[in-house]
Amino acid sequence: MSRPMEVVIIGGVAAGPKAACKIIRVMPDANVTIVEKGKLLSSAVCGLPYYISGAVQKQEQLLSTPTGVVRDPAFFQQVKNVHVLNRTEAVEIDCSAKRVRVRHLAGGDESWLDYDKLVIATGAAPVVPPIPNIDLENVFTLHSIHDAEAVKNLLAQGKVRDVLVVGGGLIGVETTEALVEKGCRVTIIEMLPQILSMLDWEIAKLVEMHMQSHGVKVLTGTKVEALEGNGKVTGALTNQGTLPADMVILSIGVRPTVKLAQDAGLEIGTTGAIKVDQRMCTSDADIYAAGDCVECTDLLTGKPCFVPLGSTANKQGRVVANNICGRGDTFPGVLGSSVCKVFDYCVARTGLTKVAARNLGYEVETALAPAPDKAHFMPTAAPLLLKLVADKKTRRLLGAQATGPGAADKRIDVAAMAITAGMTVDQLANVDLCYAPPYAPAMDNIITAANVVRNKLDGHMTGVSPVEVHRMLEDEEDFVFLDVRSPAEHEEVQLPRATLVPLGALRSRLDEFPKDKQIVTFCKISLRGYEAALILKAAGFQDVRVMDGGVAMWPFETKVV
Amino acid sequence: MSRPMEVVIIGGVAAGPKAACKIIRVMPDANVTIVEKGKLLSSAVCGLPYYISGAVQKQEQLLSTPTGVVRDPAFFQQVKNVHVLNRTEAVEIDCSAKRVRVRHLAGGDESWLDYDKLVIATGAAPVVPPIPNIDLENVFTLHSIHDAEAVKNLLAQGKVRDVLVVGGGLIGVETTEALVEKGCRVTIIEMLPQILSMLDWEIAKLVEMHMQSHGVKVLTGTKVEALEGNGKVTGALTNQGTLPADMVILSIGVRPTVKLAQDAGLEIGTTGAIKVDQRMCTSDADIYAAGDCVECTDLLTGKPCFVPLGSTANKQGRVVANNICGRGDTFPGVLGSSVCKVFDYCVARTGLTKVAARNLGYEVETALAPAPDKAHFMPTAAPLLLKLVADKKTRRLLGAQATGPGAADKRIDVAAMAITAGMTVDQLANVDLCYAPPYAPAMDNIITAANVVRNKLDGHMTGVSPVEVHRMLEDEEDFVFLDVRSPAEHEEVQLPRATLVPLGALRSRLDEFPKDKQIVTFCKISLRGYEAALILKAAGFQDVRVMDGGVAMWPFETKVV
Repeated sequence: MSRPMEVVIIGGVAAGPKAACKIIRVMPDANVTIVEKGKLLSSAVCGLPYYISGAVQKQEQLLSTPTGVVRDPAFFQQVKNVHVLNRTEAVEIDCSAKRVRVRHLAGGDESWLDYDKLVIATGAAPVVPPIPNIDLENVFTLHSIHDAEAVKNLLAQGKVRDVLVVGGGLIGVETTEALVEKGCRVTIIEMLPQILSMLDWEIAKLVEMHMQSHGVKVLTGTKVEALEGNGKVTGALTNQGTLPADMVILSIGVRPTVKLAQDAGLEIGTTGAIKVDQRMCTSDADIYAAGDCVECTDLLTGKPCFVPLGSTANKQGRVVANNICGRGDTFPGVLGSSVCKVFDYCVARTGLTKVAARNLGYEVETALAPAPDKAHFMPTAAPLLLKLVADKKTRRLLGAQATGPGAADKRIDVAAMAITAGMTVDQLANVDLCYAPPYAPAMDNIITAANVVRNKLDGHMTGVSPVEVHRMLEDEEDFVFLDVRSPAEHEEVQLPRATLVPLGALRSRLDEFPKDKQIVTFCKISLRGYEAALILKAAGFQDVRVMDGGVAMWPFETKVV
Repeated sequence: MSRPMEVVIIGGVAAGPKAACKIIRVMPDANVTIVEKGKLLSSAVCGLPYYISGAVQKQEQLLSTPTGVVRDPAFFQQVKNVHVLNRTEAVEIDCSAKRVRVRHLAGGDESWLDYDKLVIATGAAPVVPPIPNIDLENVFTLHSIHDAEAVKNLLAQGKVRDVLVVGGGLIGVETTEALVEKGCRVTIIEMLPQILSMLDWEIAKLVEMHMQSHGVKVLTGTKVEALEGNGKVTGALTNQGTLPADMVILSIGVRPTVKLAQDAGLEIGTTGAIKVDQRMCTSDADIYAAGDCVECTDLLTGKPCFVPLGSTANKQGRVVANNICGRGDTFPGVLGSSVCKVFDYCVARTGLTKVAARNLGYEVETALAPAPDKAHFMPTAAPLLLKLVADKKTRRLLGAQATGPGAADKRIDVAAMAITAGMTVDQLANVDLCYAPPYAPAMDNIITAANVVRNKLDGHMTGVSPVEVHRMLEDEEDFVFLDVRSPAEHEEVQLPRATLVPLGALRSRLDEFPKDKQIVTFCKISLRGYEAALILKAAGFQDVRVMDGGVAMWPFETKVV
């Protein structure tokens, strides 16, 4: 066209500014306008828990470039040549006339903005449950810098002791850590049977136990029925009784902000988020959408999913910009990769959990592989608790979860790459990852884990999950629970009803066990447990299983002597 | 066969014990014997620098399992059911009679061991250059625990001040760090124009500058012609003059130990290491080989290569075992992935360097992408200096190198996965890596780097390497060297002959520069430099380039104000 292209972008947090700046870089003559309801732009909302804890000291840090320049409207205009209307709400999209009606929140006056191309980056909004007294003072969601500021101000008054965090997802656990660091006594209330529902139960349980070791109370299967208080919140009524609270954080999740798109007649997907094609184009060819308001494709299942994340928003913003500038670009989809810090633990996951994979009809094999994340003799080595999920039929990796003080994020990024590439566990077991003692064991954790899956798929190892063993113990089933660790290790930590026969002594003590009785072997991490099972099988024992993950990944109480 | 299989394994360090234990796990009835020349087995020689520095306190830690059991012959016998002949040297392989002649080093008596399958895992030996006085006292290689013990003993006497490390490869730089920590004044002498020849020059130079900041003297292009001393070493004569030395560490590299294989008529590859097929089988169908004595296939080029590493040895040991047990298994090859710690820097690489790729006939595009390795507002964020090398024709990633205090190992592992999967930079730019502020920026470093390569491949950015800019400056070429950082940043660190025009002011100061003159833009990391170049190009400037990597990756002296 002869005149400059007019681009209007609704939303100034992540995908919006990213698209705006990229459009100007590719098409310097374009007129790009960002319409943002709030005052602030490009705020790093993922950093809010660290602002509350004080790790991030100044609000400006969450609004600045890496070199410390605040991304305000003047910055966007002067440096990026992007026009910003902040404190301005987009209230209507007129698709046929290709214009957006906006309301300037300061004065209330309205005007129309014409566009050639429109980008909807309206994000998502926190879910606020419709329960009595939800409007009491000192009840917060944590979605903007203003929210964080309000929480910080209340904490600074020094009167907050008991905090209830409602919802044990990513934001809930990150905020819990921040509040504990500020001296609060925190209880997480989670409706589901586990926190962090993107993990399998036993991995979430290991994280829960770690949180408890830092003084956090975790109530799963618990529902808040009402808040209590008079003006200010004083407690919550749950199906497990009443809990005191000086502050309540609602972290139940977010819903995509789609009203504007919906009212304009744009197609909304089955997840409730805006439907886009791989080019991030909505059902209107001149309207794109990106970030937390759109649904993505799950790369493994091909199905739509809603996984709002800042990393995805930024990538999508770039794809939108390229398409608006006439350079074909596509966003393939996501694996639900995510990571969070929970006190001394890193928690990360990608792809399908065992439960999700089974629900999708996969027949799966899994491995629980605990090991030091660096050469075990290095003083910096830290335990890493890794779970892999693979498809029995194709032997492909479907998912991975990891936690512990070790570098879980690194292994889960490697797993995400393996899943993206469609690798089998056999291929994964031989990838050339970097090795030196300060960074990895000679056999990297993920390679060892892949080999455990291979051993199981090839019938050399029959595993049994710690959850199943725990059930067998509770049901008082008749089996030998065989601890093949050293006497010293057995002295330190014990599992219930276990018999100690150190691996080195097993060959000479085989006659202590009846050959037709089920035997479940274990050690600290299950390697010696595996060797014990092989010895027993070679000696003619019929039903021998290895408990996945050993003592290191036992997600229940142990007897610490 | 009706009788148990006899397996003899020559070499007890890494691949040998791995193969032995795996064979017994799969085939409990096999008779497996390890023949090891030394006294010790399964020693973690990669840990020697950390034993010298004291980070690893006890020798036993390098010989133990993660649970602290020393892997001595009794351990192998009792726990693993593997027979060990240590202090025993294999001196001849009789392929036709399928037997190995061994000499017991204690008494000197010899005997023959029959085998059904033989595994050669003889490792590699340090290169000792044939120069005068190389046999002086206090001249060491660092290849066994005994070597490290000798170095430690000498250091403990408190008389060592000046140490020459001859050879600036992985072992050389790791050992240098250890010696500096023990109070030595260390000079690295490297014959080539750079240390760490597995890196491109400018990345190696950044590491070299970091070593220098820790007091290490690095002499590249320097050759040791003779050692000097009387009984004990006192110095080295080089082509750059004489250097004093109380101790000399030879870390020139290793050569595969192949004499036994060669004498037996087994095929030796072009690299000088034992030739094996993907099953790790030698030219004799009953003889396998694994570890530092074999050559591998380079996954990118398909050509044989010699990259001795403990990680590879362990994987190969498992493949050997599976094949001996009749379960087909293959080892596909390597990418030359490696990592080392150099003081506060992690240094990692995988695939092809730019130089190696060009020598192989690839037309390449590269990116230098420096950025914080975590969300920039986090106090734990640390600079990561990343280089990607891609094939112009296919847009595939060919190699990656990274250094700096940031988590280089994580990004290089991701790059290794991308190369293994044959991913293009376009695919890499959209992978779903884990994001949370304590672990990564919203756009992970490797994704940003992939996007820089894409911008260059698509003609949106013309880069120029800092090495080329440095040459242009030295040759006093006529061009504008345009610093678009802020005045405050410019005050702190300056590059030679640069003109400061902060990015925000550039649009209004375009008339200061003649449109036909070459302009090279830069900033701290090159993002603002890129934006400046786009502004200049849009304004009609003809020849505008962005200096790759900005000030952050400038591998020369800067003017620190």
